[in-house]
Amino acid sequence: MRIGIDAMGGDRAPLEEVRGALEARALLAADDRIVLIGDEAAIRPHLDGAHDWAEKIELRHASQVIRTSEAPVEALRAKPDSSIAVMTKLHRSGEIDASISAGHTGAFVAAAQMHLRRLRGVHRPGITIVTPAPRGPVALCDVGANVQPRPQHLHQYGIMASVYMQAICGVADPRVALLSIGEEDAKGNVLVKKARDLMKDDPHVNFVGNVEGRDLFRGVCDVVVCDGFVGNVVLKLMEGMAGAVIEAVFRDVAEALRQHADALHRAAEQIVRKYDFNEYGGAPLLGVGGICIICHGASDARGIRNAVRVAKDFATRRVNERITELLSRPEGAGDA
Amino acid sequence: MRIGIDAMGGDRAPLEEVRGALEARALLAADDRIVLIGDEAAIRPHLDGAHDWAEKIELRHASQVIRTSEAPVEALRAKPDSSIAVMTKLHRSGEIDASISAGHTGAFVAAAQMHLRRLRGVHRPGITIVTPAPRGPVALCDVGANVQPRPQHLHQYGIMASVYMQAICGVADPRVALLSIGEEDAKGNVLVKKARDLMKDDPHVNFVGNVEGRDLFRGVCDVVVCDGFVGNVVLKLMEGMAGAVIEAVFRDVAEALRQHADALHRAAEQIVRKYDFNEYGGAPLLGVGGICIICHGASDARGIRNAVRVAKDFATRRVNERITELLSRPEGAGDA
Repeated sequence: MRIGIDAMGGDRAPLEEVRGALEARALLAADDRIVLIGDEAAIRPHLDGAHDWAEKIELRHASQVIRTSEAPVEALRAKPDSSIAVMTKLHRSGEIDASISAGHTGAFVAAAQMHLRRLRGVHRPGITIVTPAPRGPVALCDVGANVQPRPQHLHQYGIMASVYMQAICGVADPRVALLSIGEEDAKGNVLVKKARDLMKDDPHVNFVGNVEGRDLFRGVCDVVVCDGFVGNVVLKLMEGMAGAVIEAVFRDVAEALRQHADALHRAAEQIVRKYDFNEYGGAPLLGVGGICIICHGASDARGIRNAVRVAKDFATRRVNERITELLSRPEGAGDA
Repeated sequence: MRIGIDAMGGDRAPLEEVRGALEARALLAADDRIVLIGDEAAIRPHLDGAHDWAEKIELRHASQVIRTSEAPVEALRAKPDSSIAVMTKLHRSGEIDASISAGHTGAFVAAAQMHLRRLRGVHRPGITIVTPAPRGPVALCDVGANVQPRPQHLHQYGIMASVYMQAICGVADPRVALLSIGEEDAKGNVLVKKARDLMKDDPHVNFVGNVEGRDLFRGVCDVVVCDGFVGNVVLKLMEGMAGAVIEAVFRDVAEALRQHADALHRAAEQIVRKYDFNEYGGAPLLGVGGICIICHGASDARGIRNAVRVAKDFATRRVNERITELLSRPEGAGDA
């Protein structure tokens, strides 16, 4: 397997990307290779000290970089030699089997849809994050690929994210829920009500009904489906809130237990690490004809290395083959 | 001022409602009265021990209760003598000046719209919660009154919630933001993009642009506007997450500092109390022709007492008069 990494993507690129690639060598099988894509002159200095890096890592030059402030589609057009564009074109031609980027999410999603197309039967790809909830991981799909989805799209997100949770997190029969504002059938907006009707009639979805925001932490479901606008708000709220609450708690605890400030500080570091997005290992764009893993812009080497792990599991456990099988059935959701 | 309290509303009604009413006596001016509405036989035993309660508190019998499982409009029709229906009818006829309920939010909102109508110029009322963010309180509007709003509704939420923040939290010129999935104009769904155009052209809104979920804790704005579906998801997520993170942090800290378990436990209680929704004092339904304060279903006496405080401030600081003034201007947002 050949895994492409956009070396120019994240906030601290290419440093963390290169470090992540070096660390990820430990995860590779004998035939596996990592392809770092980006400005060779910027990448090489970070590789030079590493022992025998060329055995597992290849470089592929790309002269341009898409900045997070740019409009996705326009940027892809204006920068055909950007690391994201070059990576997804390598992916299309089969020179790599997976793409990883901590760069511009919108541009990566647009490039993937443009060059890799959708899997057979899939209406719209969806980004799926797995959150480290206290009672077991919960997958949330979509968190931003599609901000004006139709009910059929939500239905398919439920199926695709179930396949993913089964394959990657080993959840046997993932319980799928719709994110809404009350458990009752009558609650929610038009989109949610229509998606609910589609999901509850589908024997291929273990649909457990609507859940509310607070239920994400209660262990009542394994997959939560929502539109990309709501999912993105939720994702960023969780990120902001985890930090704010932990910070506030530690400020107060430290005050209450001033004499133990050092021990508390060490505990805080451990916990912040535990709730760190770098542990997620990136969010796959489910439904495209390839393996595309989106990393947080602030990913460090650990985040990149974990994305390589996700890409490998994704291939080994045949996530795309299983999605195609379910969604291209004549009676399947791909029909709608 | 006469303040009605739905005595049958919350999870522990009428106990906490009656206790809250008794505690709230300390907040009342000489002419103020609290009117407890509900089943007299259930309410009286909780009042009996209290000293001179009848000087400040009146009872108004209502024989029916709307359960949280009931559909709002149908329940109001089927139960004309429910505490919520009786309270809002007393409000309409001027026998009370404010209504407080920790009961069925949907039924309370529907009853308020049915009996109190809207303020002049207001298209749709919106529920506004104030969250105790670390860098100062932030108002979020709407959190569930209107799940399919139009852009004009969001625009008016910005104006109404600004008036509220100014009046109740003393924020001089509240910075208003739209909840979206990126700061750039091009980000967001159709609703957000259209609302943005309306708000940025209105000199009566101190519009600071789009914010993301994480910005709620960064002190970059005082008012956040969103559709009622998104707002309700956010509200419940914050509630669930605060508890989950605090719980997880304390579990880990306690493990790290096992010898100080008691001190930690005391600190935890203080902090949980600080982040408790009972401190918010209820969420006003802005835009209706009255003062309607919605409390959390799990409100305790403190939550009810704080809602009385909010109702009093709402009247004293003339929130509704100011909203009417702004929205019924011929050139105002009420026009659209």
